[in-house]
Amino acid sequence: MKAIILNRNLSDKIELVETELPALKENEVRISLVASALNHRDEWSRQGLYPNLRDGVILGSDGAGKVVKIGSKVPGDWLGKEVIINPASNWGGAEHAKSNDFRILGIPDNGTLAEYVQVPYDRLHYKPEHLSWEEAAALPLAGLTAYRAVFVQGGLQAGEKVLITGIGGGVAQFAAQYAVAAGAQVYISSSSAEKIKRAKEIGVLSGFNYKDANWVEEVRATVGGFDLIVDSAMGDTLNNLIDVANPGGRIIFYGATMGNPSGFNARKVYWNQLTIKGSTMGSDGDFLQMVDFVKNKQIVPIIDQIFELKDSVAAFERMKAGQQMGKIVIRIS
Amino acid sequence: MKAIILNRNLSDKIELVETELPALKENEVRISLVASALNHRDEWSRQGLYPNLRDGVILGSDGAGKVVKIGSKVPGDWLGKEVIINPASNWGGAEHAKSNDFRILGIPDNGTLAEYVQVPYDRLHYKPEHLSWEEAAALPLAGLTAYRAVFVQGGLQAGEKVLITGIGGGVAQFAAQYAVAAGAQVYISSSSAEKIKRAKEIGVLSGFNYKDANWVEEVRATVGGFDLIVDSAMGDTLNNLIDVANPGGRIIFYGATMGNPSGFNARKVYWNQLTIKGSTMGSDGDFLQMVDFVKNKQIVPIIDQIFELKDSVAAFERMKAGQQMGKIVIRIS
Repeated sequence: MKAIILNRNLSDKIELVETELPALKENEVRISLVASALNHRDEWSRQGLYPNLRDGVILGSDGAGKVVKIGSKVPGDWLGKEVIINPASNWGGAEHAKSNDFRILGIPDNGTLAEYVQVPYDRLHYKPEHLSWEEAAALPLAGLTAYRAVFVQGGLQAGEKVLITGIGGGVAQFAAQYAVAAGAQVYISSSSAEKIKRAKEIGVLSGFNYKDANWVEEVRATVGGFDLIVDSAMGDTLNNLIDVANPGGRIIFYGATMGNPSGFNARKVYWNQLTIKGSTMGSDGDFLQMVDFVKNKQIVPIIDQIFELKDSVAAFERMKAGQQMGKIVIRIS
Repeated sequence: MKAIILNRNLSDKIELVETELPALKENEVRISLVASALNHRDEWSRQGLYPNLRDGVILGSDGAGKVVKIGSKVPGDWLGKEVIINPASNWGGAEHAKSNDFRILGIPDNGTLAEYVQVPYDRLHYKPEHLSWEEAAALPLAGLTAYRAVFVQGGLQAGEKVLITGIGGGVAQFAAQYAVAAGAQVYISSSSAEKIKRAKEIGVLSGFNYKDANWVEEVRATVGGFDLIVDSAMGDTLNNLIDVANPGGRIIFYGATMGNPSGFNARKVYWNQLTIKGSTMGSDGDFLQMVDFVKNKQIVPIIDQIFELKDSVAAFERMKAGQQMGKIVIRIS
């Protein structure tokens, strides 16, 4: 079968190869993938920034396809089903945090940028019927991360004022879509006027350009402040987020693309009873609730661009450039 | 009446004077104070570090005494009652954060370092019967702050592993006593071997000297990690606290005596799903629950030393030196 593997000896760091999967285990299914999607962790793996990298591994955490073969202990009715894959496994028994055995599909295991992938059948969920194959493939990892950040860690309530920073990313877009669907008043930040305009089409009320020196004052004058902020930049934007948080507000972050903050106003945090909370991926329960929510609210993932498997280097380059608005999808079959 | 007022023209910054209170308002009671207690905010006011300072104001937030006079709209059965005072007022209608009108007894209003104090009768609670006057006076501000930090913001559950940092302070001691009473496994940190020894007498399992370079490794080797950490130092100890937090752990801080952190490991916070949350004082509901808890668990505040009102400068100096183990109480009548 065709697959995209990591090969750090090449200048592109990834290559399209012909390879075979190992024998199917008794609790696994083989899925013929129709579509896959990229996440930052794929590009970071390509850049050598992810732990436990191994040349030869098939990249990719997101996928949608049909079950074409099942292991001896898999219930027979899975055969032929149209599915999406929960890329998170071994979360463990505690909802508040993952176990040390937690892993994500694709690095160090073989992932979804291939014609076939093999996963334990307890990772399967039916493909939501209102989604195309490309949309379904775009959902799992970013949709799960956003769901936990917004609802589980963030505790969003209808009517609250929400800021989602960096609207270009997949997680941020799901977070904005979820918050709108949950009845919140949703605002975003971006350095791109075009992305702010696009965000308004999904129900976002307004956007702030965080590169404007006076964006904090603009928020105060127009919105007042935010009850919930969902961020993945951190770095020295944290003090701005603290400044635009309402008393009792929650700042949830699921990444730190701008690195560690070089400090923050501690007095403002305790005096205003603020919460700064981390979030990553989600539990099996979170995934189940996320899929239910997406079906109930008929949420459709935003797709930036669709590439063929053979054009994966171009797809990765697009993610690296950070200009996308929505998920970058790979059409496989 | 005798009272301790702020007078920044003096080298001591406070002085014992003869003064009179204004006429009692219709919703107020006059309390003949038997004992008062010091808090950091009193000493910080003396040092000019608190906002809204005004020479001539009577300091003090904590007090216990007898109701000797009531305003025209106060129910008659308050007269003669033995009471403690909730020093927090105007919290507002939202439990998750205080309103902008929130204020604390003593600065900018006249406080409890005096023979009499006048407060609205809705600030009164019956003095817990198991406490002496000095113990009752030691409870309100620190007891409230600790209750909200441990239970409301910290969400402590029985059986959890808890670290209380800086055990010398009043809030930290209440936090340790509450956590022990709630069935947690409680550890403390201090730079004083004597204070660690004293803490074990109230049920703390063990203590760590945070000035030891290897205290983080010691925690890992002996305890593993903490589910809840209650801190008021912040500064650059934050990364150590992040290092000793269990996955999903909560770091609650109610002050920042060591100033702002100069950064923190953001990846560890989101990857381990940690919470960093501020807490200050508490709502009326928190105060009510705190008093109930103290009565049910028969918690007795730890008193460091008792001073006469005329020796207040010495009492303030003891707080400034930071060597106390327990509350510094002023006996008034």
